[in-house]
Order: sequence, then structure tokens, then C-alpha cells
Amino acid sequence: MTDTTTDTAGTVDVRGRIPEQGDGCEAADILAAVRTHVDPELRRAIDTLPGSLRGVALYHFGWEHADGTPARGNAGKAIRPALVLTAVRALGGDPAPAVRAAAAVELVHNFTLLHDDVMDRDTTRRHRPTAWTVFGDADAILAGDAMQALAQRLLAEDPHPGAPAAAARLATCVMELCAGQHADCALERRSPDEVTLDECLAMAEAKTGALLGCACALGAVYAGAGPEEVEALDGFGREAGLAFQLIDDVIGIWGDPGRTGKPAGADLAVRKKSLPVVAALASGTPAAAELAELYGGRPGGTEADPGDAARVARAVESAGGRDWAQVHAADRMSRAMGQLARAVPDPAAADGLLTLAEFVTRRTY
Amino acid sequence: MTDTTTDTAGTVDVRGRIPEQGDGCEAADILAAVRTHVDPELRRAIDTLPGSLRGVALYHFGWEHADGTPARGNAGKAIRPALVLTAVRALGGDPAPAVRAAAAVELVHNFTLLHDDVMDRDTTRRHRPTAWTVFGDADAILAGDAMQALAQRLLAEDPHPGAPAAAARLATCVMELCAGQHADCALERRSPDEVTLDECLAMAEAKTGALLGCACALGAVYAGAGPEEVEALDGFGREAGLAFQLIDDVIGIWGDPGRTGKPAGADLAVRKKSLPVVAALASGTPAAAELAELYGGRPGGTEADPGDAARVARAVESAGGRDWAQVHAADRMSRAMGQLARAVPDPAAADGLLTLAEFVTRRTY
Repeated sequence: MTDTTTDTAGTVDVRGRIPEQGDGCEAADILAAVRTHVDPELRRAIDTLPGSLRGVALYHFGWEHADGTPARGNAGKAIRPALVLTAVRALGGDPAPAVRAAAAVELVHNFTLLHDDVMDRDTTRRHRPTAWTVFGDADAILAGDAMQALAQRLLAEDPHPGAPAAAARLATCVMELCAGQHADCALERRSPDEVTLDECLAMAEAKTGALLGCACALGAVYAGAGPEEVEALDGFGREAGLAFQLIDDVIGIWGDPGRTGKPAGADLAVRKKSLPVVAALASGTPAAAELAELYGGRPGGTEADPGDAARVARAVESAGGRDWAQVHAADRMSRAMGQLARAVPDPAAADGLLTLAEFVTRRTY
Repeated sequence: MTDTTTDTAGTVDVRGRIPEQGDGCEAADILAAVRTHVDPELRRAIDTLPGSLRGVALYHFGWEHADGTPARGNAGKAIRPALVLTAVRALGGDPAPAVRAAAAVELVHNFTLLHDDVMDRDTTRRHRPTAWTVFGDADAILAGDAMQALAQRLLAEDPHPGAPAAAARLATCVMELCAGQHADCALERRSPDEVTLDECLAMAEAKTGALLGCACALGAVYAGAGPEEVEALDGFGREAGLAFQLIDDVIGIWGDPGRTGKPAGADLAVRKKSLPVVAALASGTPAAAELAELYGGRPGGTEADPGDAARVARAVESAGGRDWAQVHAADRMSRAMGQLARAVPDPAAADGLLTLAEFVTRRTY
């Protein structure tokens, strides 16, 4: 399925609107085009939820205020649906019949966000109060449960021949996401010197890489690709996901508060075991010992102390945590490129996926 | 598919072990036989969960102690899987290929129990501490999420032609279960005089009837039945489920603590808005006014006061709540029989489902 000239019949209705690969389009164009296709499918699906939980879902997606009045919407960047549809196209398939699967992936992503926010007691998501703070824990849990069911129903009702395999793959991915969130909670409870870098990388792969990989793999399934190409695209998404997480962790420490929307060093203030920190702690340098003392010293408060955060950030940097994260992110991206080339040898066909991978991993900070 | 002589080829491996309808077998025999088929499928499925969540699931099903050592197991009565397999048989199908769907229904039931216990802060389930009290809220939520995914994966990987329709139906049922639990939580927060009987009946149908109906409907789907028979069996399960809930509520008030395992009047002590109570409050009798005063007077404590519970129970009975529940349960059972006869006119073929419906609704107390 690497010949992009095959299987393009019947794509007229979408091809004119989802930007082609190799036409030099920006990631923002792809994402905007994907939104115009996936959002209506998503809203149609959410409209079938029972009334009592629909409002929680609409609030979470930013389409309604807490009082049920319409909101302008900030449902996230739609990276995962974009990966599904761009992967279909990269493998020479027609993205139109995969829009439902793309919506299912986005529902799964958002169901896990709803539940993670409950567990982590996070109070802000996409610049708004999290659903559990507005509707209570029970309704946030129930809306998440219903959204997982909705995702699976979209695939169960999808007549596409790839739908059952996609449903099984998405379900397996949910289990991995759950294991990743479990590992995250468990790691946070342990003291910094009890946590290994391998554990943190495995957690990040399960929590972030798995769904990006699944999104790409579902695109391959909908393109009718063979098992090797499906696995290679899964690998591409996973590796790019890891690179994304590494860069995200760097931004969490050294990012510009004006861009991140979080106070400088917020991750450090709560003593988060992010990848640069754990790498720094494992470095065996004198700065690592200083960092261990700072990080193990006191449990982080909710208020960031700029002086403390700056000290910790300097120690992480001196111990090589920032460099390690950037080098490791580049390494993951190069592995991602290798997997992509396995599945899609034609660079023009691979361009859309490449653009998205670069978008998520080369954010400025 | 009402001709029970059709579609019985290839059933030898199961037919010898799952008791036949019309052979006078007891519900206990059906349930025990179902367990021997569904439990291995269920355990195989649970063994594929990520290690960190598998222990929570095995604990919840009673197959492991909290420390991971094997337990004798008390995974509930397996009513729902029994309804699936008995419904297949009633419609002349082979139950063997439906064992996976039966396990999926049982996984969905147990995922909702895990989550409901977290929301309701219930501390005991099947005579053991609930999973969240042992593993924490996060792991109970995550294990439930993973179990819902596992249920859907069983169906997505099932080559049976009815599997996609079954998956869609089960997903829709999950949404209804979530809406039912939402309604239950919302009703509990309102004062007794703000709650109508219709609301409580609708909540009980969503929370209890929906999955019993879905189990029967899935059996019909796996038997290759037409849409009318599928809907009739769904109706049968729903009505029997309502009857079950009514009887369960009667037992919750007047049941023998030695049999129920709960202190006498426990439901009344916590001011639960069970169906007999709400019917009594709506009766317009002098006893209803007395009951309203007792019930609205103070929020229930966690410790049952036997004198208070006995007074409330007498008021519910004087206001006709007990009689109403019993008459209404009988009415629901007769509606259930009507639906069953629509789908399965041959009484011998319907006998197994009848036996199960009577088992769940005619428990002694």
C-alpha cells in the first residue's frame, strides 16, 4: 500500500479539502482541515449520549459552558484524529471512511483526560476548570465511561472491513493507557531515588505513545495496509509520542509561562518526576546529589516558589537533564522516521505524517 | 427463530453440559453450568489485562486476595451470562459460540460495580471490602476502565456474525447504565418530597433493567434471531429486571438480616429512596405524611438505629409501600412473560429463561 496512486477512487469529497501531502502545507492547515471533518462526527456522536451526561461531555470538549449555553469551543488540537486521517492518506487510502474511527480515537483520548483529571485532582484543563470541579467526581467518571462506550459503538456500527480490527486495537490501547496512568500515580508516590529512568520511559510510552501509535495504526488499518505496515505506523506514532513527551517535559521546566499558560517551574514546584529530572538524578554528577537533596527535601506545595524552582531547574540542567532530554527526543524522532520509512518509503506520501510529528515535537518554548 | 429444532448442529460440546430447557432443572443447575463455561473465558480474558490492573480485577471477582494469593472466588451469581446463553438456547441457537459474549456482559456488569462503589463510597461488596477501599480510588477506576475495554475487545475479536451488533448494543447499554447511576446519585441528593415514583422507576430500569435486557438481547442476536425477537427478549429482561429491583428493595427493608448479610432496615437508616418508600410517600395516606416527616427529618447516619428503622418500616407498610412493590413486581413479571411469549412461543423452549426470571424475583426473605 505504499503506492500512493492506488485506492484513490471515491475520495473526491474529502481530497479537495484535506490538504494533500507533499504540497508544502503546514501542520496547522492539516489540523484545521481535520477539525472540519471530525468535529461534526464527534458532535453527532456526543448528541446521542444520555442527556444527563451529554452536558459534561460538551463542557469537557469546550462546546458548552457549565450552564449549558454554547461556548466557542477549545477541544484541543485534534492531533490524534489528524494522525488517523493523515496515515490513511499516506498509505494511499481514502480518509473519508475513516472519519468515524478518527472521532473514536478522539473520544478515547478525552475519556482518559476526564478520568485522569479526577484521579490527579487537576483543576485546570485547556484553560478552564476541569469537569470534576464543575460537575463532581461521579459525573466526570460516568461521562468518561459513556464516552469510552460511545467510541466503541462508533466502530461497532462502522461497516468498513477494518472496523473490527480497529475496535480491538483501540480497546487494547485503552488498557495500555490505564496501565500508564496507574504507573504514573505509582511513580508519583515513590521518592525520587526509588524511580528509574526506564520505568519513567515505559510509563510515558504507555501514557502518551500508545494512543499516538494506535491512531497511526488505525489509519493504516483503514487504508487496508498489511500487518507489517500497521505495526511500523504504530511504532512511528509511539516514538514520536515519546519525543513529544520529552519536549513537553522540557517545556514544563524551561518553558515561557506566557506560552505554556502555567507558572514557570510549575512541574518542579510539585516535584513532578518528569523525564529530564529523573535523567538528571540518574546522572551520577555532583549536581545530581544536590538535586536529590532539593527534590527529596520537601514535598512540593501547590504554590510555585520562583526561587526554589529556579534553583531546581539549574540543578537539573547542570546534571545534564535538559541536554539528555533533547538528545533523547531527537533520537526518538529519528527512530520514528525509520518506522515511517518502513511503512511509507515515498517521502512525498510520508510528508503529512512527518509534518504532524514535527509539529508536536518542535513546539517553540 | 422460534423453531427450536433449527440451528442445533455443532452444539454437542455444550449441549451435554448446559442443562436443557424443559427438563425441570433448577436455576441453580443452570447457573452452575454457566459458570463452568463462562468462568474460564472470563479468567483467560482477565489474564490479558496489564499486570498492574489484573490484580484489582482478580480481587474484585473474588479470585485473589488483596495480597495476590489465590482465593476461593465469589464472583456473583452469573445471572447475566446465564441469561445470554439461555436466551441463545431458547431461540434454537448453539450457546457455545456465545460464551465470549456472555463473558463480555459479565465484564461490563463488574466494571460498573467497581465504578459505582467508588462513587457511592460503598465499603462492602459480596461480603468483602470493595476494591477502592483496598487499592484506592484511582486503581479501582482504572481497573473498571480496562474491564470495559476488555469486554469490547472480546466482541471485536469474535468472528461470530452477530458480534458487531452485540458490541454496539452492549456499548449503548453502558451509556444507559451510566445515565442510571447518574440519576441514582442525583435522586439521593434531593429531598424525598422532590422525587417522583416515575423518576425512580426510570432510574431502576436504566440501572438494573437495561443490562438484564441487553444480556437476553445478545443471546437472541447470537441465535440469529430477527429484530422483533431481539427487542422482545430485551423487553423480557428489562421487565424481569424491574421486578427484581422491586423485590430487592422489599428485601432491603423487610429482609431477614441473617440472609441479606445487612443489618435490618439498613436501607432505611441511610434514607435510601427505594421504590417502596417513594411509592409510600406518594400514596396520599396519613401514614405517608408521618413517613415524610420521619424520612425528611434527619439525614441517615451510617449506624442503623433499630427503633428508628422499625418505625419507618411500619410507616412504609401502613402507607401501602410494601403491597405496592409486590403487586408492581408481579405486574412487571407478567409483562416479562408477555415479551418472552412473543419471542419464544413454545413454553418448553422458554422454560430456562422463565426459571432464571423466577429465580431472581422470587428470592425468599
